[in-house]
Amino acid sequence: MKNLIKNSFVSFIFLISLTNLGNSAETTMSAEGQYIFNTLGFYLGGVLVAFMAAGFCMLESGLVSTKSVSTIAAKNVGKFAITSIVFFLFGYNLAYGIPEGGYIGSFKIWGDETNLDTGYSGYSDWFYQTMFVCATVSIVSGAVAERIKIWPFFIFSALMAGFIYPISMGWQWGGGWLASLGFSDFAGSTLVHACGGAAALAGVIVLGSRIGRFGKKGEPHNLVPYAASSIPLVTLGTFLLWFGWFGFNGFSQLAVGTFDDVNAINKIAVNTHLAGAAGTVTAAVVTRLLGGKTDIVMMLNGALAGLVAITAEPLYPTPILAMVIGAIGSLIMYFGTKFLEAKHLDDVVGAIPVHMFAGIFGTLVVPISNPNTSFGTQFTGVLVVCLFSFILSYLIFKVLKASIGLRISREAEKLGTDVAEVGVKAYAIRD
Amino acid sequence: MKNLIKNSFVSFIFLISLTNLGNSAETTMSAEGQYIFNTLGFYLGGVLVAFMAAGFCMLESGLVSTKSVSTIAAKNVGKFAITSIVFFLFGYNLAYGIPEGGYIGSFKIWGDETNLDTGYSGYSDWFYQTMFVCATVSIVSGAVAERIKIWPFFIFSALMAGFIYPISMGWQWGGGWLASLGFSDFAGSTLVHACGGAAALAGVIVLGSRIGRFGKKGEPHNLVPYAASSIPLVTLGTFLLWFGWFGFNGFSQLAVGTFDDVNAINKIAVNTHLAGAAGTVTAAVVTRLLGGKTDIVMMLNGALAGLVAITAEPLYPTPILAMVIGAIGSLIMYFGTKFLEAKHLDDVVGAIPVHMFAGIFGTLVVPISNPNTSFGTQFTGVLVVCLFSFILSYLIFKVLKASIGLRISREAEKLGTDVAEVGVKAYAIRD
Amino acid sequence: MKNLIKNSFVSFIFLISLTNLGNSAETTMSAEGQYIFNTLGFYLGGVLVAFMAAGFCMLESGLVSTKSVSTIAAKNVGKFAITSIVFFLFGYNLAYGIPEGGYIGSFKIWGDETNLDTGYSGYSDWFYQTMFVCATVSIVSGAVAERIKIWPFFIFSALMAGFIYPISMGWQWGGGWLASLGFSDFAGSTLVHACGGAAALAGVIVLGSRIGRFGKKGEPHNLVPYAASSIPLVTLGTFLLWFGWFGFNGFSQLAVGTFDDVNAINKIAVNTHLAGAAGTVTAAVVTRLLGGKTDIVMMLNGALAGLVAITAEPLYPTPILAMVIGAIGSLIMYFGTKFLEAKHLDDVVGAIPVHMFAGIFGTLVVPISNPNTSFGTQFTGVLVVCLFSFILSYLIFKVLKASIGLRISREAEKLGTDVAEVGVKAYAIRD
Repeated sequence: MKNLIKNSFVSFIFLISLTNLGNSAETTMSAEGQYIFNTLGFYLGGVLVAFMAAGFCMLESGLVSTKSVSTIAAKNVGKFAITSIVFFLFGYNLAYGIPEGGYIGSFKIWGDETNLDTGYSGYSDWFYQTMFVCATVSIVSGAVAERIKIWPFFIFSALMAGFIYPISMGWQWGGGWLASLGFSDFAGSTLVHACGGAAALAGVIVLGSRIGRFGKKGEPHNLVPYAASSIPLVTLGTFLLWFGWFGFNGFSQLAVGTFDDVNAINKIAVNTHLAGAAGTVTAAVVTRLLGGKTDIVMMLNGALAGLVAITAEPLYPTPILAMVIGAIGSLIMYFGTKFLEAKHLDDVVGAIPVHMFAGIFGTLVVPISNPNTSFGTQFTGVLVVCLFSFILSYLIFKVLKASIGLRISREAEKLGTDVAEVGVKAYAIRD
Repeated sequence: MKNLIKNSFVSFIFLISLTNLGNSAETTMSAEGQYIFNTLGFYLGGVLVAFMAAGFCMLESGLVSTKSVSTIAAKNVGKFAITSIVFFLFGYNLAYGIPEGGYIGSFKIWGDETNLDTGYSGYSDWFYQTMFVCATVSIVSGAVAERIKIWPFFIFSALMAGFIYPISMGWQWGGGWLASLGFSDFAGSTLVHACGGAAALAGVIVLGSRIGRFGKKGEPHNLVPYAASSIPLVTLGTFLLWFGWFGFNGFSQLAVGTFDDVNAINKIAVNTHLAGAAGTVTAAVVTRLLGGKTDIVMMLNGALAGLVAITAEPLYPTPILAMVIGAIGSLIMYFGTKFLEAKHLDDVVGAIPVHMFAGIFGTLVVPISNPNTSFGTQFTGVLVVCLFSFILSYLIFKVLKASIGLRISREAEKLGTDVAEVGVKAYAIRD
Repeated sequence: MKNLIKNSFVSFIFLISLTNLGNSAETTMSAEGQYIFNTLGFYLGGVLVAFMAAGFCMLESGLVSTKSVSTIAAKNVGKFAITSIVFFLFGYNLAYGIPEGGYIGSFKIWGDETNLDTGYSGYSDWFYQTMFVCATVSIVSGAVAERIKIWPFFIFSALMAGFIYPISMGWQWGGGWLASLGFSDFAGSTLVHACGGAAALAGVIVLGSRIGRFGKKGEPHNLVPYAASSIPLVTLGTFLLWFGWFGFNGFSQLAVGTFDDVNAINKIAVNTHLAGAAGTVTAAVVTRLLGGKTDIVMMLNGALAGLVAITAEPLYPTPILAMVIGAIGSLIMYFGTKFLEAKHLDDVVGAIPVHMFAGIFGTLVVPISNPNTSFGTQFTGVLVVCLFSFILSYLIFKVLKASIGLRISREAEKLGTDVAEVGVKAYAIRD
């Protein structure tokens, strides 16, 4: 709960002005009222962020080729379930049971620890935070699509939700050493997005590219054999992610029940929305100018990159600055996508440029608007979290590859993961 | 509004602790504040449960074959409209106008009876409860798909929303004889889900199976002529249902505006989410072990079965118990689906195992966690509601069959319901 | 914030009755509590109305032919972004910076003008109002689909969001001359829907119809070359619009934090829902009786027409009257669609009959239930806003046509806008 100096002054004026309002016996909120608002806020935020799970699923379902869509659906709903259970069993206390300034929390099952001092229900906090884990793991799912086996992916998801994400997240949001250092990441440009993106990069490297995805030279996104199966689903998914972001960033204020908090939530909503808007327009202009066509997939990833970039600090910037940050995030995504293609790194949905590259950028520029941060500390935080996530993910993927196997067979890949792994074709549309 | 003994003690401690908080003149919520919270809760809950209408529609659209999709859409949006109007004209007062311990309410149009004693707006209650009727009737829609005529289905929907559901629901939630007996069904495992599932069973029996659906032996779900038209839509539908469930179970607490109530809502959200998660994982494991493939359709129905099972009592169980209940609900769904196929009962979307079988299970196990209930009473409630719904639905379907006809002609069925009944093909996707 | 005489009396009784409730120190809400409720209301309303952007996109994606779907997606997400930015830069102060009874506001960038007198955060108001602009421009998008160039459409969107909509909206909601005259349009049957519909009509006239859309005689909606690509997406879009409408109409009450306001929001939700329901059923009956089939597209447009019609006055009517208004709105949509087809005006999605015709009707009948209005004033408001929007839009489309060009070439139209303009095919679904 941030009490900004500027806002405190406004509050003071506000309280004075309130004494003129007739039908109120008291000018300030009761403590029970604050508790209810805060708890309801986590609930509403959790539901909104839950929509992001559907958003990721639709976006990925639409971007993969027609023979991998059922598998994406199975991976997304399975991951939504597995990560929630694992975060309940291990993750939550590993993140929040950390000693102040420490490195790791405690290994125990999350319990109903209603902490009255926090001003909100423990259940509501678990609910809200769980949806963030699901988002983090979702980022990996799309990047490694069309060639990873389902169950090794599920095992990776469990390890990511139970250990990787909670440990590095606890360094900051659990009050660990990064928080003590003065690192700042409001809603997770680094802790969620770059962390997920770095894991995705590890997966893409270990797995290798899809058969025939790259020729001698880099080839464009919607290559015939791997053409996106459904652009409307990609668009729907992006819209759902965008709306979910209002909960993701807004309720990361972690309180609703005061004048300052509810004002902050709404400033965050405005900045978040405008950053996404600027990212969209930037990608539209860039693809039109550089490629001749107005590329819808780039527009959608531009929106997401803008949203990722503003996530590290959606409260301090003016709306104009928020738009600038969103626009640059989108540019970084565009050139990052080209870079990965040139390197023959096969990120099916563009998760790495959207979440990792734009997330790193957004975290690094926090000091431009937030006077309590420094570029050095931001750089440290980004570097450590990305390395931690990348290295652990790389090791896990390597171990999975060497043990139970990570990638489906060439024959299975030609049949498609839907036939090989799920046994249910995604579409049976005929005239 | 349940005031649990445990929570009351916590509240007491809470109120004492609150006296230490500085910026609050009064520690408890004002009565107007409570009223606003409660009323806003019904509004938000109603909007979330409304999303379930879209969820059912997408789930059913994706599971039926390509030539019955427009019809499913027409049935779902038509049913959403018709049931709301009928519940306004007859249903609401039939349910809530019941004398204490009685059997049937009053036949009159719902009016703006703002009852100040309830602590919330009458409009908000109607809005919330109406979305439950829509959910109940939706359960029937999918089971009888691909061969029922649209208008007889609409007539059945009107009778179900106007009479069957309100009467048996009033026995419990209207304060009728089941409530007096001590039956307990928090958000409707029986009153909504098993009731809808029993009606679906009646419909499936009266209609018979789709042409060629069953050979000499039971055949697998995604049989070629009736292959699911779109797995991503089934997945989207399931996600929308899952999110809607947060409103369905959470706001069935029927109040928001106290410390105890808002805590209860969030405990319910956690239990609901984890039961759905456990149901998903269980179905993934079972299908992988028994069938070799990780069946996405079973995973999605497993999620729903877990959610249905926890609906009778989402507040008392620990999260661990909630997961166990969800997992068993999923198993029951799985074997129930096989059972129906073996009996050549053609439930197109698995509505009967998901909603009826898992709903019965969830209601019967309430006494495990809720000390105010007994197995005998739970059994009585389940039996009576299911029989009431099944028998009345069976009679209505029989009368419709004998009068205006219930099933489309063989020629129409071969053309598909979209061409025969709606005149609009669902898809015109070509290269 | 409307304080109705009737409700004030109820409030008085309510406050007396509250004195009997035990656990409340004060009976009324604190001023800070009111502020939080109001601000949270705008936030929640904004998120719900944002879902309408996805709703319009899905509806239009499903109704256009398969070769224009990516373009619709690009137009919708691009428009969502552009209109938000332009409304931030020009529109908001043009609408709300208007002098009382005046004609135009001020040309300046919207700033963080937290106006304590309003009782809610300025950011929350901007967020909510912005989503209304997005809805207004969306109405145009569908009507002119399949032949307009993307970038001229973006330019038009910017001009509509920056100037046309804000100026005429400011006449009423900004406190300009229409408000002074006594015009009444609660949530925008005219200011949003008819305004958008009139702009769509101008676009359709200037552009002309799609190649081969009309033969010598008017032909039915789902003509083979322009068959709707996906009915489930149309249905999903309509559901999302319907749910968004609960925010659109409900939070147009502009306050949540009193007994009267939260009651009003819920009465509005009930009336809005029932008007949409009646519109759906009416279209189902009419198409079944007149055409033999139960036309799903007409049902969905009937739902929307009912929702549009009630939007001008969702608070005063009884639920029965709301249903009558919704039903007539649906009839007007049906015959309006036939009228446009007969005139060879090619409105791809039926935006003009749904939004303009039903919107005009809804605004004109406000005096039936709202005693503070007159038919003469309502007629004046409708006429002036529609003419203003139509004439300015017509001029803009004409200028665009004469300068950079408005319509794609015949060759491009035959290839489809997706190939010609976006370079990404919408679907790659194959067995």
